[in-house]
This record gives sequence, C-alpha cells and structure tokens, in this order.
Amino acid sequence: MPDSINRQIVLAAYPEGAPADSDFALAESPVPEPDDGQVLCRAIYLSLDPYMRGRISPAKSYAKGVAIGEVITGGTVSQVIESKSPDFAEGDIVFGYTGWQDYAVMEAGQLKIVDPQLAPISTALGVLGMPGMTAYTGLANIGQPKEGETLVVAAASGAVGSAVGQIAKIKGCRTIGVAGEDDKCAFVVEELGFDACLNHKDADFAGKLASVCPDGVDIYWENVGGAVFEAVLPLCNEFARIPVCGLIAHSNATELPSGPNQVPVVMRSVLTKRLRIQGFIVWDFADQEAEFIETMSGWIREGRVKYREDFVDGLENAPGAFRGLLQGKNFGKLVIRVSPDPTR
Amino acid sequence: MPDSINRQIVLAAYPEGAPADSDFALAESPVPEPDDGQVLCRAIYLSLDPYMRGRISPAKSYAKGVAIGEVITGGTVSQVIESKSPDFAEGDIVFGYTGWQDYAVMEAGQLKIVDPQLAPISTALGVLGMPGMTAYTGLANIGQPKEGETLVVAAASGAVGSAVGQIAKIKGCRTIGVAGEDDKCAFVVEELGFDACLNHKDADFAGKLASVCPDGVDIYWENVGGAVFEAVLPLCNEFARIPVCGLIAHSNATELPSGPNQVPVVMRSVLTKRLRIQGFIVWDFADQEAEFIETMSGWIREGRVKYREDFVDGLENAPGAFRGLLQGKNFGKLVIRVSPDPTR
Repeated sequence: MPDSINRQIVLAAYPEGAPADSDFALAESPVPEPDDGQVLCRAIYLSLDPYMRGRISPAKSYAKGVAIGEVITGGTVSQVIESKSPDFAEGDIVFGYTGWQDYAVMEAGQLKIVDPQLAPISTALGVLGMPGMTAYTGLANIGQPKEGETLVVAAASGAVGSAVGQIAKIKGCRTIGVAGEDDKCAFVVEELGFDACLNHKDADFAGKLASVCPDGVDIYWENVGGAVFEAVLPLCNEFARIPVCGLIAHSNATELPSGPNQVPVVMRSVLTKRLRIQGFIVWDFADQEAEFIETMSGWIREGRVKYREDFVDGLENAPGAFRGLLQGKNFGKLVIRVSPDPTR
Repeated sequence: MPDSINRQIVLAAYPEGAPADSDFALAESPVPEPDDGQVLCRAIYLSLDPYMRGRISPAKSYAKGVAIGEVITGGTVSQVIESKSPDFAEGDIVFGYTGWQDYAVMEAGQLKIVDPQLAPISTALGVLGMPGMTAYTGLANIGQPKEGETLVVAAASGAVGSAVGQIAKIKGCRTIGVAGEDDKCAFVVEELGFDACLNHKDADFAGKLASVCPDGVDIYWENVGGAVFEAVLPLCNEFARIPVCGLIAHSNATELPSGPNQVPVVMRSVLTKRLRIQGFIVWDFADQEAEFIETMSGWIREGRVKYREDFVDGLENAPGAFRGLLQGKNFGKLVIRVSPDPTR
C-alpha cells in the first residue's frame, strides 16, 4: 500500500545563475490514483543530470521547460504499485520521467520495463540509460572513432564521459579525459583505463593537454564548453569531429564572457581544419536503443565497460545534490535513493 | 612562339588587413623551358577567388602559403605552347594552378584538359570549375537539401553562391540570397530565379531576413561570416546544416571583433537546435569531380543553371581586381583576361 502523502519537489523560482535552495520547494499532495490504461509508480531511484538545468530555465531549449509550481522533471527507476494497464503488473520495475516526487501516475506508453537480470536497476539511469546511450549513439553517429585516433572528453568520470572514453578505448582510440579533481583523474586512468586524465584546474592545463595529445585531437566530445573547448580547439586535427551534447560550464552563466568575440576564431578553425561540430540529443537516435542496450550490457558483463554511481539518500536532498552536480561535486553517475531498492 | 618575357606578379609583402598595391610587385623573367614530362603553358584566363587572401597571409591555413617574392597562386585556363609530355599537344586548352603570370612550366600531372565543346573555356574557372564544384559537393555532402526546405546563401551573385542557390532550387528548396548591392540582388532574383535576395547593408537586415524565411532556415551556406551568420543563426531550424567554405567578411580582419564573446551563444544554438557546422574545401570531395562536371554541364545546357562572369583585361590589373573582390566589387565570377581566347 502506498503512503497517503506524495512528497514533491516543485520549481519555486527560475534560478538566476547557480540554483539556490529557495528556487525549490517541497510540496505534499495526495497519492494520485490511476485511471484505465494508467499505472501508479513509486520512485526508487531518481536521476540527476546536467540537462535539467536547461529545463528549469525560462530560455527556449529542445524540450518544454518546467513551469513555476510544477514538479521538477526527472527520469526515475520506479516500481509499479498499481496497474490499470495490461502491459504492467504490480511489482514491475520501470523507467519513466516520473519527476522529483515519490509517486506518479503515468500512461502505460510513457514507461519502459527495466530488466533486473541485466544489471543493477539503477544503471537504467546511467550506463544502461540515457547517459550511456548518449555516449554510444553520439560516438557511433557523429564521433565515428577510428583505430589510432585521439579522443578527448571532459567530465570524464561522469556518467556520459566515462562511457564515451571506455567505448573509444574499445574502438582503439587513444583516450584522454579531463576532470575537475585529482581523485577523479586517478579513477579515470586506473579504473576506467583511459590513457591519461588531466585536471582542468591545473596551472597550464592547455599546455599539459597538448603534451598528452602529441598526435593532435580527432574527436573532442563536448559536454562542458568553456575553457576545455578553448584548449582543445587549437589541437584539433583536420577532419576532427566535435559532438556537442552538453555545455555544463555555461549552464549557470547569466552573462556572456567578456570579449573579444572569439566566433571568428572558431569558424576559421572549422574552415581551415574542416571540423564538424554537431549538436545532438540522445533521442535523435531513439531507433538505436535496442542495439545500444544489447552491446553495452555485453561490454559491462565482459568487464570492458565499468561505471561508478554516486548515491544520495532522500528525495529532500535532490536540490542540494543537483546544485553540487552543476559544480562537479558528484563523483560518478548521481542518483537519489528515493525509496528502498526491492531487487537488492 | 612565346614572347621572350614572362610577366609575373609576386608577393612583395604580407598584407596587413586589406591588401594594398604595394603588397604586390610586377616582375619579369625569361619564359621558362619545359623538360621531359613537362608542358609550357600560356595563361588565357586567370581566376581570382577569395581563398587567395588566405594564401598571401603568414597564418596557417589548409594549403601552403605564398612566400615573399613568389608568384601569387592562382588557377588558370591556359593554352599549351610547348609539350614534352605525351599527354598534351600544342594548342590544347588546360586548367592548372599556373599562377599570376603569363607563362608557366608545369608537370603534366598538374594539368587537366578543358573541353571547349562543353562550354566556354572560362567556365572551367567558375561554374564548371572549383567554385561550381564547391557548391555542388558542399550541398551534396553537407547541406543535403530536401524538397521544401529553406536555404540561405550569402555572396549570392558570386561564383559559388549563384551555383549554390540554383542547385538548391533544382532540389526544391526555397532559396534566399544575400548580396551587397541592389543590382546584384535584382540579378539573383530575376536572372537566377532565387525566391528573394536581400542587401545586407540595408537597415534592419536581420528583420528582413526573418520575414523572408517564415519557416526558418534549414541550410545556411557560410561563405562570408560576420553579420550574415549572426542574423541567420537565430532563424535556424532544428537539424539545420551549415557548410562552411569561406569567411570573406573576416579575411581582411587584423583583430577580433569586440566582446562579449559570442561563442557560448553559437554553441548553445548548436546544442539546442542540433546544428551541424562543418568546414570543407572542394578537394575533400575530389572523387566526385566527374559526376559534378557531367551533372552541372547538363544543367547549364538545359538552362537550369546560369552564370555570370566579370572579366577584367590585363594581368597587371589582377591586384586591383583582387582588392575589389575582397570588397565585393565584382559582379559574378571574377576572371582576368591575360591573353586572347583562341576558342572565341
């Protein structure tokens, strides 16, 4: 039986710059009841991802934003509590965008079954979920890694970056990570098998990056923007590919960096080096999901792809954890434990 | 028989900003003699193209630059005066990078036969040459025009832009040109059949561009940079493609525009609209040349692709004409008549 109260975290105000506690509010409402074709879910794990910063901004992005007073958007691994759909049974583990709340009623078509036999169910939010598929499809379709090439990826210990680098290694690339803490860099090299990992806070980061990329850069996986992009651009080889799936370094920015305007520098590099800079989101390649799940879960079972999760207990701690995510304080895929995992 | 003197225009100094007369010098040398496997050519038509500005700069580009004292690089349609190669006969019309001079000795492998039956031989420098092939291959491989899409191209009356727009029309696109003079705009619409053409010097150019692109922009052909790029970027639809083959607006720049730094704006558009920005040069698609020649010459014969040439008489006038090209003073493909055309 569900509790009678549904805790929800709603958007209290659009953050200006870095989100503050006061931009979020805890609300309580009755647990909703499903109609025919609907399913009542209770969240087990809530995923926190950088893209959510764009959702709580009034600026136009590729998806509809969260309005003031609405529950914050978020993917969860949930358990079916009550089903009025033939597609789901009580007790099923499902993935869906149920948001920052304990309970949600979803249309059956908005949910996907998570197979607990494949891997721990929390991985449906990480290496076997949206972040892992972002890495897999962005590399396959835009990055196009080739044996002997050099790939640079920032936020290398994060959910997307760690998968990008490990897949690139499988494809035969020299793989260079960038992270913001020395212990993350050590993990990326020692546990994940990257060839090197640099701390972007180091003095002379750009010079160090050049020294670990003696053959230049063929793929720069852009998920942060800012100083890392500026350091990589001069190292790019002809025909380098730059898949762009995130710009976390800009996400809290309230104004543009001071001048000069570097756009002509970027465009000149695009022209003279014939770079390909291409934005994407994972759902652009939705038809490749089955292939991704099969290939990636195989690599995980074989020990060729590893992952790290950073669990935070309690829905009420989601705003603080999210603020930390935007500052790079998490170490691995950031997941909120909303309720106990029944498969463990 | 050749004259005994070979007039050459050499680089006297690297231009700072816009090239000046004093950056060029007229030199005279004996007409060279071919060795075995070589061919002596006399220039008939010399092509002037924006890319040459990069060649006379000390900055690194995709091709080796011209050194001080060297003859300026340039493609010509020439006639074979003396051949010591079995591949060429005296009188043949050839294309090659013989440079800004009357005579040149070339390796046979550096020359290609121009067929005077196909079209006027000067078109081997324009619509049937590098500019036309730039348009054809850049659209086919990067722009990928689809029926009903909207394409914007700047320098629309120029050699590349006029071909881009006409090919896009053939592919079923709504085609919007941008040029710098009202008479060029009129030509682009009335003679070339574009749907509209705007003068980028008009007040409220950006607003006018938006009004003639009611369904947004799916392809922006980037050959100028600067203000046109800034006006088009907000109009780009999701999945828009931006082939980058030139940045003439920046080519004389000696310093970057003042701030703020707009790179985050560009990258955010790339991400949220999933834009593809890709640089290329025509020779990246060299293996498509035969297809291009066949298709494009067919369109010309059918009257579906038109072209305009802007002839200037005399090798000695090349520097002045080139300076005008960088300021948009030419109207159509700019060609220097170096010596009489024997096919006319």
